[in-house]
Amino acid sequence: MKTTIREIADLVQGELIRGDESTAITGFSSLEDANSSQISFYASDKFQESLQKTKAAVVLISSSGEPLAPGSTALISVADPAVAFDAIVARYGDKPPEFVPGIATGSHVDSTVQLDVSKVSILPGATVLKNAVIGNGTLIQPGAVIGERVVIGNDCEIGPNVSIREGCVLGDRVIIHGGTVIGGDGFGYEFDNGKHRKVDQLGIVKIEDDVEIGSSTTIDRARFGETLIGEGTKIDNQVQIGHNAVIGKHCIIVAQCGISGSAKLGNYVTLAARVGIAGHIEIADRVTVGGKSGVISSITEPGGTYFGYPAKPMKETLRTEMRIKKLGGLLNRVKDLEKRLEELDGKQ
Amino acid sequence: MKTTIREIADLVQGELIRGDESTAITGFSSLEDANSSQISFYASDKFQESLQKTKAAVVLISSSGEPLAPGSTALISVADPAVAFDAIVARYGDKPPEFVPGIATGSHVDSTVQLDVSKVSILPGATVLKNAVIGNGTLIQPGAVIGERVVIGNDCEIGPNVSIREGCVLGDRVIIHGGTVIGGDGFGYEFDNGKHRKVDQLGIVKIEDDVEIGSSTTIDRARFGETLIGEGTKIDNQVQIGHNAVIGKHCIIVAQCGISGSAKLGNYVTLAARVGIAGHIEIADRVTVGGKSGVISSITEPGGTYFGYPAKPMKETLRTEMRIKKLGGLLNRVKDLEKRLEELDGKQ
Amino acid sequence: MKTTIREIADLVQGELIRGDESTAITGFSSLEDANSSQISFYASDKFQESLQKTKAAVVLISSSGEPLAPGSTALISVADPAVAFDAIVARYGDKPPEFVPGIATGSHVDSTVQLDVSKVSILPGATVLKNAVIGNGTLIQPGAVIGERVVIGNDCEIGPNVSIREGCVLGDRVIIHGGTVIGGDGFGYEFDNGKHRKVDQLGIVKIEDDVEIGSSTTIDRARFGETLIGEGTKIDNQVQIGHNAVIGKHCIIVAQCGISGSAKLGNYVTLAARVGIAGHIEIADRVTVGGKSGVISSITEPGGTYFGYPAKPMKETLRTEMRIKKLGGLLNRVKDLEKRLEELDGKQ
Repeated sequence: MKTTIREIADLVQGELIRGDESTAITGFSSLEDANSSQISFYASDKFQESLQKTKAAVVLISSSGEPLAPGSTALISVADPAVAFDAIVARYGDKPPEFVPGIATGSHVDSTVQLDVSKVSILPGATVLKNAVIGNGTLIQPGAVIGERVVIGNDCEIGPNVSIREGCVLGDRVIIHGGTVIGGDGFGYEFDNGKHRKVDQLGIVKIEDDVEIGSSTTIDRARFGETLIGEGTKIDNQVQIGHNAVIGKHCIIVAQCGISGSAKLGNYVTLAARVGIAGHIEIADRVTVGGKSGVISSITEPGGTYFGYPAKPMKETLRTEMRIKKLGGLLNRVKDLEKRLEELDGKQ
Repeated sequence: MKTTIREIADLVQGELIRGDESTAITGFSSLEDANSSQISFYASDKFQESLQKTKAAVVLISSSGEPLAPGSTALISVADPAVAFDAIVARYGDKPPEFVPGIATGSHVDSTVQLDVSKVSILPGATVLKNAVIGNGTLIQPGAVIGERVVIGNDCEIGPNVSIREGCVLGDRVIIHGGTVIGGDGFGYEFDNGKHRKVDQLGIVKIEDDVEIGSSTTIDRARFGETLIGEGTKIDNQVQIGHNAVIGKHCIIVAQCGISGSAKLGNYVTLAARVGIAGHIEIADRVTVGGKSGVISSITEPGGTYFGYPAKPMKETLRTEMRIKKLGGLLNRVKDLEKRLEELDGKQ
Repeated sequence: MKTTIREIADLVQGELIRGDESTAITGFSSLEDANSSQISFYASDKFQESLQKTKAAVVLISSSGEPLAPGSTALISVADPAVAFDAIVARYGDKPPEFVPGIATGSHVDSTVQLDVSKVSILPGATVLKNAVIGNGTLIQPGAVIGERVVIGNDCEIGPNVSIREGCVLGDRVIIHGGTVIGGDGFGYEFDNGKHRKVDQLGIVKIEDDVEIGSSTTIDRARFGETLIGEGTKIDNQVQIGHNAVIGKHCIIVAQCGISGSAKLGNYVTLAARVGIAGHIEIADRVTVGGKSGVISSITEPGGTYFGYPAKPMKETLRTEMRIKKLGGLLNRVKDLEKRLEELDGKQ
């Protein structure tokens, strides 16, 4: 990207309200990350602090932002800064790979697979096994493996080296990033005569519409029935979800969480990074769990914030931590009490 | 699945001892997960509580279960409920993918590989490199990569997108789920002149008979010699095992555990989810470590249960947690003591 | 390997200063792991304890080690034991797979890819998409997927089933182990009208020279600009690095760490296993963070050691742990004080 503030102002039909129009612009970035030859944008009051600290050469703003920006920052006023910024990205940014319909040479698609070859895109190195169904507008990246009888809806993107095992079902607009494994066997054994005997895992994983799943996440198939990921839920990288778990709709599950078998999450649940959820427990709607917590019993009241291991209401855990901080002082106070009591005792 | 209680009773040659034989049955599930149009089974006293709470339309039982089942649940009496349930699953459930012997078109098997083409199944998109050996009855899923000189025993299943690096050795009946990496280099460097210089990792990973390994697990090759996974051990998803670690026989290692380099686990060790084991320590036979614990020194006594970080005998950690819970009260008691002592002092 | 101490002494032109030259030697290993038919080496004073405890049949030493070795261990004196040991490994060990230049049958390399076919090695089952650039001496293992416009430098090794998404840039001598995913989308959503709306992730991942990355690690592309891994940094298995994170040069990041989005690590930072770093914070140069810690605020002073959750200077966390250990005693002392005060009160 090589342009000037003037050219950008023209592109977005904005008004340069401050700064030198001939300044060279070499890239775009967020307010926080932009350097002094980049353009950024101020889309909402939420970013006031970032605007005040930005090092961007020029910022797209609506009227409200002007007084907050550093004096050295040029400003272009536009009606909708986010939309204007998107136009700049579309003009100067790298284009995402094009959707090229067809079954590429070097992919392996069984003859029994149901798909419309003019509407799906299966890239080289992808494999689709017997009786799978691929919806229109769906992209299968190289190295992805779609197992027998898997059903994938419309407009999905299956990332490179993703594995979806036999019988699993995906809705529409599902995105699965690289290396993720859907439908591996649940971890179940019977201890029998000194050995662990495998318990067959005969169910599937069902993923509803508009779910996005990060890289190297693993979701196991159910013992019977289905492990379920509800509509609109977003799952980050390296998350582990055990067999028969049920995740509600519109949840956020941040990286490296682990959800044990048969756990049930409600809707709009948020798990920060590295949270562990024990098996067979339930989490109510709209509950938030803080990072690195371990939830070992059901949370039945909707909407609270929990933290710690074992996870307690946030305030309770913070109170306990505060008390632990006071332990040094407490030890000294007890020592002092003992001494004073000794003295007092001596006086009598 | 579309059938009736009558048809099921006939299939398993059982006696309908309670309920309406014309009730429609649409699926099968565990006692816990079954809904009111599904069949389940009661195989052991361990599941008494699940039986009492089940919502299944009908349950297969032996004589003992009858009094515990909810009144609304139909009951079919059979000699062995687990065996009868298996028959129902075999009749109505999805068939697992068939083992089709041969080297599929679209797989890449080097001409030096040793195998009996009539007895192995290598699916499209799998790659087997020079001088590898594949035993009879073994299935290699799409996207799996079998490195040079790898030896795989009989009746193994290597999942989709699994990577097994050069020289590693697997016994018989080993199952490895999708995306797992066996034999990546151990993490070893010498700090030298301001840089980390790589230490060659020249050993292998050896996996004994009847081991099962979950999805996206990583087991590093040894510096010299071998990283060893003992017979019958079962490892869950996203477990990390460092170079030269030795895992005993018949261990259970639950998801997201991390076992550092050169650690040694005995036989029948159980690690709950997310346990970390420090490098170069030993864990005695039949030890159990609770979830999220971190073991930083050897556990030499067999058979105990450990918990916490650093991991201590379970009772000790729970006692410490109990004391922390009492901290609020303790602070108040000390405050009270100070006040009373002040008063007492004043009286004199 | 089948040889004798005599043959080994001859191979390394060393002097057998102790032990029976006819002893059979069947392998090589570290001092710690060697058994009584293996050879090992003593390269530095750091390994004194390992030398004293070794069970090796014979050890290569320089003059200094002699008095420390167990009496039953044969000793071969050489000028440089590490170099001599390397010669033994080169002679008797398995050869690493040979670098065979060319584009193998069964790989999928787009016609627009820039590479010198006589100098790169692309193995069967690998896929390289449009407009990628592959440097000389670089090896692409089976199942690896190189996305559109990816640039890979010279002498790199891209492991099996690795995924590198569009536009990412790797320097020279970068090693990436199996199953790792570079350049998946960052985890970013706007909550809007009851749903999580995806925020486009338009940046890349840039990996500088001499970086090594373990198996099943995930590094997300930036929202804008780049997620950066600095020169010489070594990253272990199952590490998660969020969008826009910046990792300095020559850092060590041990297995299962998680670094949240926009975090910035300085140079020579060491994170032990399972450390979590919160988003948008900075860690100064040469800081070390102990295993399983969670760093939730910036560490601005270079060179210290931190531990705990929240991470504090190591001493502070250990002091707190010590105080918690004393809690049982403290409870008793308070109980005792209460009793004595009661008595004292009664006397008056």
